Amino acid sequence: MTSSEIAFRVRYNEVDRMGYAHHGNYAAYFEMGRTELMREHGLNYKEMEDKGILLPLSDFKVKYFQPAFYDDELRLVTILEKFTGVRLVFCYRLYNKKNLLLSEGSTSLAFVSASTGKPVRPSEEILEKLRICMA
Amino acid sequence: MTSSEIAFRVRYNEVDRMGYAHHGNYAAYFEMGRTELMREHGLNYKEMEDKGILLPLSDFKVKYFQPAFYDDELRLVTILEKFTGVRLVFCYRLYNKKNLLLSEGSTSLAFVSASTGKPVRPSEEILEKLRICMA
Amino acid sequence: MTSSEIAFRVRYNEVDRMGYAHHGNYAAYFEMGRTELMREHGLNYKEMEDKGILLPLSDFKVKYFQPAFYDDELRLVTILEKFTGVRLVFCYRLYNKKNLLLSEGSTSLAFVSASTGKPVRPSEEILEKLRICMA
Amino acid sequence: MTSSEIAFRVRYNEVDRMGYAHHGNYAAYFEMGRTELMREHGLNYKEMEDKGILLPLSDFKVKYFQPAFYDDELRLVTILEKFTGVRLVFCYRLYNKKNLLLSEGSTSLAFVSASTGKPVRPSEEILEKLRICMA
Repeated sequence: MTSSEIAFRVRYNEVDRMGYAHHGNYAAYFEMGRTELMREHGLNYKEMEDKGILLPLSDFKVKYFQPAFYDDELRLVTILEKFTGVRLVFCYRLYNKKNLLLSEGSTSLAFVSASTGKPVRPSEEILEKLRICMA
Repeated sequence: MTSSEIAFRVRYNEVDRMGYAHHGNYAAYFEMGRTELMREHGLNYKEMEDKGILLPLSDFKVKYFQPAFYDDELRLVTILEKFTGVRLVFCYRLYNKKNLLLSEGSTSLAFVSASTGKPVRPSEEILEKLRICMA
Repeated sequence: MTSSEIAFRVRYNEVDRMGYAHHGNYAAYFEMGRTELMREHGLNYKEMEDKGILLPLSDFKVKYFQPAFYDDELRLVTILEKFTGVRLVFCYRLYNKKNLLLSEGSTSLAFVSASTGKPVRPSEEILEKLRICMA
Repeated sequence: MTSSEIAFRVRYNEVDRMGYAHHGNYAAYFEMGRTELMREHGLNYKEMEDKGILLPLSDFKVKYFQPAFYDDELRLVTILEKFTGVRLVFCYRLYNKKNLLLSEGSTSLAFVSASTGKPVRPSEEILEKLRICMA
């Protein structure tokens, strides 16, 4: 299974008064992860959305094992775990610089038409690229 | 089981280019929900944290059934579902003005000492108030 | 000059590791302020945007005198200070519960057409309502 | 005058329903800019804060000339413009990939003691490094 890695620092505004990267920011981290995984396989999420194919979430899960702190250099590994019809499941693992697994998560997304708001089968070109992500 | 309700509008900055309240904001919505549930039962989360008792998340789950849109008036129902030793599980249901269930979620939190970073049993006073939340 | 007041609490996720409401959140606070000022004068910003009239910022200024803290109950006073052709200037004053002035700000916005991305003169109906905001 | 450059992409969650990077996110962008400028001159903002020297904002200004869009690769140039006693003024210029100046901003910050909440003169070591930023 193809995985994609991104690295980034925890921003000051993302950190709460406990000194932890606030748990709500993981949504943005995972979003960057799957965007880059798709880009690496020739799928530009922005272009897809501009063509009227949206990819909203139906399910979001995170397990937080250890907090991430301000200015920490994090490494996020993303895989496309499942892909059935109009639904995609991405899984994520977030590590710190010492390679400690900080958290694990998953997101389910479904292709939706911007014009109708209903689930929609994406083009064969998109499907083919997603199959390669899974290979 | 005691439930708490809050109402709020989706803010402009919370809405993404699909026109949906971005899924990452639900973390902040749920946080408001459990804070008010606790406040209604005499537990001030800020004071607790100021006394060195933190309540970080270990688990976060959301199912998104329908999107929330900009300026929507939402209603969030929060319950304390479980409470065992140092761990709390809150559950959330988010409704729009038409009483449509938009999403459901849960968060697991654990009492942690600010000084040691380790799980800690909260005071009997806090425990008693949590028992009342559960009643 | 008509002013509008809103009250809200500082959310947990908005607070940084200094314990202050992070300065970047004031953009969202001010946005709520002007949205409610307009709503009170019959101008629904969402409807305006849905009809293709956008109101992006050209200028944003804040002076921070005192920090706001987690869970603080804040009061935001908004006025429409200037209104010339396609440009609006809103001013904001943020107070805490003790009526201490925490910060002051202003935003300049211009009516822009969603389809062309260019400045656009809004309808006479919108202009009339804005004149009433200024009265 | 020493300048520092960072490059980053506009994240999905940062973009509003106009399709613009929401203006409130520029606070986070500028924060990254000055953090990296300081780091390049041997000043680790996190360590400073951990030692009890805070650097909150007293003033924030942005002029938005052109919007930034989702997934845009931006380039932020940061300089330390002024440095007098306990006060620092950073200036920022944000460019897109085509080298178009999208916005300009400035932030004033003051050294504050975490324990007293009052302005404080930083150590000679910090001052010396800031003088080099200005050189």
